[in-house]
Amino acid sequence: MGYLTTLYGHSLALLTDLYELTMACGYWKSGLADRETVFHLAFRHNPFGGGFGLACGLGPAVEWLSDFRFTGEDLEYMGGLRGNDGQPLFDPAFLAFLEDLRFTCDVDAIEEGTVVFPHEPLLRIHGPALQCQIAESALLNLINYQSLVATKAARIVTAACGRRVIDFGTRRAHGIEAGVLAARAAYIGGCDGTSNVAAGHRFGIPTYGTQAHSWVMAYDREEEAFRRFQEVFPEHAILLVDTYDVRAAVEKIIASGRKPRGIRLDSGDLVADSQWARQRLRQVGWEDVQIFASGNLDEYRIAALLERGAEIDGFGVGTALVTSEDAPSLGVVYKLVEVEAEEERRLAAKFSDAKTTYPGRKQVFRFRDARGEFYQDLIALEGEQPAGGEPLLVPVMRGGRRLHPSSPLVELRERCADARQHLPAALRQLEAAGTYPVRYSQQLEALQQAVRQRYRGGVEEKQQKAAPTRRG
Amino acid sequence: MGYLTTLYGHSLALLTDLYELTMACGYWKSGLADRETVFHLAFRHNPFGGGFGLACGLGPAVEWLSDFRFTGEDLEYMGGLRGNDGQPLFDPAFLAFLEDLRFTCDVDAIEEGTVVFPHEPLLRIHGPALQCQIAESALLNLINYQSLVATKAARIVTAACGRRVIDFGTRRAHGIEAGVLAARAAYIGGCDGTSNVAAGHRFGIPTYGTQAHSWVMAYDREEEAFRRFQEVFPEHAILLVDTYDVRAAVEKIIASGRKPRGIRLDSGDLVADSQWARQRLRQVGWEDVQIFASGNLDEYRIAALLERGAEIDGFGVGTALVTSEDAPSLGVVYKLVEVEAEEERRLAAKFSDAKTTYPGRKQVFRFRDARGEFYQDLIALEGEQPAGGEPLLVPVMRGGRRLHPSSPLVELRERCADARQHLPAALRQLEAAGTYPVRYSQQLEALQQAVRQRYRGGVEEKQQKAAPTRRG
Repeated sequence: MGYLTTLYGHSLALLTDLYELTMACGYWKSGLADRETVFHLAFRHNPFGGGFGLACGLGPAVEWLSDFRFTGEDLEYMGGLRGNDGQPLFDPAFLAFLEDLRFTCDVDAIEEGTVVFPHEPLLRIHGPALQCQIAESALLNLINYQSLVATKAARIVTAACGRRVIDFGTRRAHGIEAGVLAARAAYIGGCDGTSNVAAGHRFGIPTYGTQAHSWVMAYDREEEAFRRFQEVFPEHAILLVDTYDVRAAVEKIIASGRKPRGIRLDSGDLVADSQWARQRLRQVGWEDVQIFASGNLDEYRIAALLERGAEIDGFGVGTALVTSEDAPSLGVVYKLVEVEAEEERRLAAKFSDAKTTYPGRKQVFRFRDARGEFYQDLIALEGEQPAGGEPLLVPVMRGGRRLHPSSPLVELRERCADARQHLPAALRQLEAAGTYPVRYSQQLEALQQAVRQRYRGGVEEKQQKAAPTRRG
Repeated sequence: MGYLTTLYGHSLALLTDLYELTMACGYWKSGLADRETVFHLAFRHNPFGGGFGLACGLGPAVEWLSDFRFTGEDLEYMGGLRGNDGQPLFDPAFLAFLEDLRFTCDVDAIEEGTVVFPHEPLLRIHGPALQCQIAESALLNLINYQSLVATKAARIVTAACGRRVIDFGTRRAHGIEAGVLAARAAYIGGCDGTSNVAAGHRFGIPTYGTQAHSWVMAYDREEEAFRRFQEVFPEHAILLVDTYDVRAAVEKIIASGRKPRGIRLDSGDLVADSQWARQRLRQVGWEDVQIFASGNLDEYRIAALLERGAEIDGFGVGTALVTSEDAPSLGVVYKLVEVEAEEERRLAAKFSDAKTTYPGRKQVFRFRDARGEFYQDLIALEGEQPAGGEPLLVPVMRGGRRLHPSSPLVELRERCADARQHLPAALRQLEAAGTYPVRYSQQLEALQQAVRQRYRGGVEEKQQKAAPTRRG
């Protein structure tokens, strides 16, 4: 396990930003470590110019939280960190405190694969300020990436109009873990499988594979390369036909008389070549030989191929999917919305110019019409119970323990496919026409006004005090 | 370790594409598993519209190769995979063979942090076909991503003109491992440090951090939030001043009389606010308070800020760096260039339309002028010894064992910074003017012609045979 140990050591707790640990130390020294706080995790814009997002990444995030603890090695490293003055950055008493720290927060979240919209909290964490703070980096990281990939997958699957879509992105993912996370998210978002064997193993995702150019090149003659592969895998050989010349390769396969399961085109004119290949295969009675395409595909290229009449039964999608090429970040944010103060709960909201957030612990309610179509979401305070609204945030962890195992991926995938069917059609298009209506409850609007008022009062008072200095 | 175990199990060998394993099985069944092959890993275009790339990721890649083996659990999973006919995909005898398989290849590579150009092999692997094939996915994955991030880092550092640049990207990286890999690559490429604590721990990279908006919001009054943080970290507090109102926050800090180490601007007009803050800080004699900026920065925005006179001492860069935003993939390829045939070594080269490669086992030679400036690279056959050329590929593993430990990151980073200084100035610009001269040796050109000739002969012969069918 040298590779993983080199990257991670034996602990996950250091997989965070330094400021989470310095702030944790600050809370601890100020006696605020255990002050109850509530944080929300949300995104601000639908990715890819589309009309929705998909929540994803909760399973690995809960796994991470469950595992959270500092090892002796972690604490030794932290003890050795020095500040600018050469003094230890962290107090030994603080490190002793961390040694016994376990995650005890409550987590509520929107299930993976659920259709979500900007500003809706995907995850809500409630617990001691110090713990909520340390968890920030990992939660943002895991949910940001997987939500992107799941959403991208749904778009690609939409473009493929029922044809098979397989994640081929492992080699282009940002690290080895990213390949596994992408395969998982892509499957939830609607892909039919992955080339990533570890993801197949760990999550039960169907795995797919064909053959590489190197296989063909390893033999003196292309027909020999095909024959050998078909001898080994008589029932599943999908032969890669673009190493030298697509049409010559297809002719060689036909001439051999050995029907493959399919062929793969990885370059060239996929419309013309697939149409030609389909015709040739039909001519020899091989109607059921599948034509598979790959090579820098994304939702737009797939839609264009099919519109131009490409005869393709399945797509392998790599780079665009796993790097979330046209939106490499979802810009997920993690915001403090509530802090326990001495006597009363105090609400926090941020009012800097561009990034206004609503205070308070929230729930998202989804409303369906008589046919089951989604027509509106309502972001409300947790206690509210608007008639007919389905609450999307559900309990996931209590006191740091997960309440139930993750749902099987195949279920998440089915529910996701079903939910996408209930979105307004205009929002399912690659370029969404319109915006899904997400409103804030009256109680929440009133609360924001009150907090804003109170804060403005405070600022004005302070600014008056500060004014002489400011001019000075 | 539930999180990692869930993702990876206890093995790394399955972190590959299924077709690597089916091809491995094919080689094994065809008696070609041990046939000697040589593969090259290279990219085709400089990323980001720049004039160079940086090789990176070798350390983790070698780590992965060293660890390579199939566990019983891996093989059990593989044994359970079924083909379309319901029969096991893999033969039990093949799985038994994998159980004893260890990596025994030779690896030569260009050291991390080296300036590299399109078509130059960054890594050369020589050994049994089966092993070289299985290693493909992980090698591509690790070198593709880290080379991108290192190159991006160098561009950002160039734009920052000597000011400090810190990787703040962990939360936007594509998974938790990606955050660590990005921190490592960014440091080699020239960043001064990272916020990622695990990367600090594992690789000795300096770690940096400030404070989050949530810290400020957790207190009733902003000045209290600042005071508490400064009490805990009197020497290192960098105070985040944009939670509510930047100028009011700076006035509060000045009014407190407690000089912080620095302030951080994370939104708003960074030029105007930094100039204003610098002036105010100078007015009170706080010339040495650093002004740090963050928030969706990249090399172009940093260059524009400095051109417009921003008074910024250091930059925190996140999303653009760790997602390699404007070039999320380097498109690294792994090509078979040589295969041992029965009686003689046979050379492989691919001649499909768009993607021509040169056959043969290669070396890259770099030429410097009298002042030490790079003026030309030569891609030659391994045995060639062009006068004055420095060979860039150096032995890394022999018989599957690494020859020496990875160089300390700080050395790689220094060598990288030095190498970038020896590039022609036109190629160091963000938008490169011109192309660095990379030539192929005469021997290599002659070899390619010979292989092409031989292959064309073969194809024409085959096409003639196939012609009747083609018309039929």
